[in-house]
Amino acid sequence: MKKVALLGPEGTYTHQAAKKYFGDFEPAYCSTIREVFESEVETKFVPVENSLGGGVSDTVDLLRETDNEITAEVALPINHALISHTGLENIETVKSHPQALAQCQELINQHGWNEVETDSTAKAVENLEPGEAALASEIAAEINNVPILQKSVQDTDSNTTRFFVLNGSPEPSEKTSIILEPGEDRPGLLHSMLSCFAGHQINLTNIQSRPTKKELGEYFFYVEANIEDKNLENAVKCLETYADVKKLGEYSRVE
Amino acid sequence: MKKVALLGPEGTYTHQAAKKYFGDFEPAYCSTIREVFESEVETKFVPVENSLGGGVSDTVDLLRETDNEITAEVALPINHALISHTGLENIETVKSHPQALAQCQELINQHGWNEVETDSTAKAVENLEPGEAALASEIAAEINNVPILQKSVQDTDSNTTRFFVLNGSPEPSEKTSIILEPGEDRPGLLHSMLSCFAGHQINLTNIQSRPTKKELGEYFFYVEANIEDKNLENAVKCLETYADVKKLGEYSRVE
Repeated sequence: MKKVALLGPEGTYTHQAAKKYFGDFEPAYCSTIREVFESEVETKFVPVENSLGGGVSDTVDLLRETDNEITAEVALPINHALISHTGLENIETVKSHPQALAQCQELINQHGWNEVETDSTAKAVENLEPGEAALASEIAAEINNVPILQKSVQDTDSNTTRFFVLNGSPEPSEKTSIILEPGEDRPGLLHSMLSCFAGHQINLTNIQSRPTKKELGEYFFYVEANIEDKNLENAVKCLETYADVKKLGEYSRVE
Repeated sequence: MKKVALLGPEGTYTHQAAKKYFGDFEPAYCSTIREVFESEVETKFVPVENSLGGGVSDTVDLLRETDNEITAEVALPINHALISHTGLENIETVKSHPQALAQCQELINQHGWNEVETDSTAKAVENLEPGEAALASEIAAEINNVPILQKSVQDTDSNTTRFFVLNGSPEPSEKTSIILEPGEDRPGLLHSMLSCFAGHQINLTNIQSRPTKKELGEYFFYVEANIEDKNLENAVKCLETYADVKKLGEYSRVE
């Protein structure tokens, strides 16, 4: 079975997304994103956008600092399940991560339940007392052997969280991620760099500026682009006339 | 005393940054960034970049969704203090948020201390037993009346966390934040929009793309720019030829 380093504990949405991609795998749980990146386990699984509880900027910074290759992107819709040993009519208290509670306010207000905050959605499912329910992933219900009363109870259409597989098996490539480090700052520099993508008709799907931490006000850029049938090599040559370029890998998206 | 809505609990770096800006103030603690934005307290204080424990993308999304005006930016260097009732030589265990523990590994390894993770740096300082120390803000030591053994114990030069004051008193303006929502996606669109800043010689200091949550793959852009002695009005007219433009306020940076 494939060994994979990822953020713990088990039963979180990260766990559910990793299972979706790897099927059965041997998890090496870490307590911070940095620990995942620095793990001796070769294959790693990290959140990159819009995760419950953040973590995005850590991932971008660590992609720049370490040598790990992105080999796949996994998109997981975040659907909260209502999980309890107690029947719906006898629930008094609902437990979850503050962001998950915030995303299920309609259901909570409709029933007038009390709210209790937990560190993670996974922890909310452990040690449920009579009269208590949790909002968490379906996998957390399965692991703790607690019934799911209702699926997808969040107020609006689910957020999608994106994850990267690092150092996995190469797959046909539709996307790429690149770090651009100009080493100087002047009006119009980003505009000039982006001319390399526009000129080669490559569409950007994500852009973020992040402090380099070397000097206050010095930034690097993280960009994602669609590269199907595109000439990435020429775009990179163009980018190299403006900045240090670090290619983070070419990969496909798994829905 | 001014009433200010901010993320709780007291004693976090958010609290320390708010105190730096407001001096004495009456805090209205909230448990999520959304609650801060939706608070009936007019003046609000939110993290925007590089905070311990994330939160940045929430702030950007809520600046787009709600009507709150940025009136100041506060930059706080994150310096962890070693806080304990026990003398340095008798410490066995050190408690803090996982990211703060990760940022102080040199000190921890040098002494061979055990690590215990807490939800926030502020919580680590509560209920310290003999033999235990916490890594947290100086204000947390003060609030809990626990001695500071050493200041600035992190491995490298401190990260700086940025915060926004919303709906405060207007100040002389050096910077602005803008949301750009193009409503379409094509190669080169961002490059075209940035031509409005480049053409008017306005320097961007931050850019982020974020999903609109309306449709998968539909993005909006959050940008920050220096506008001292610049013609922002013409740049905005130019931007409006490409996208819906939401001005989030003009403000100065407080170090």
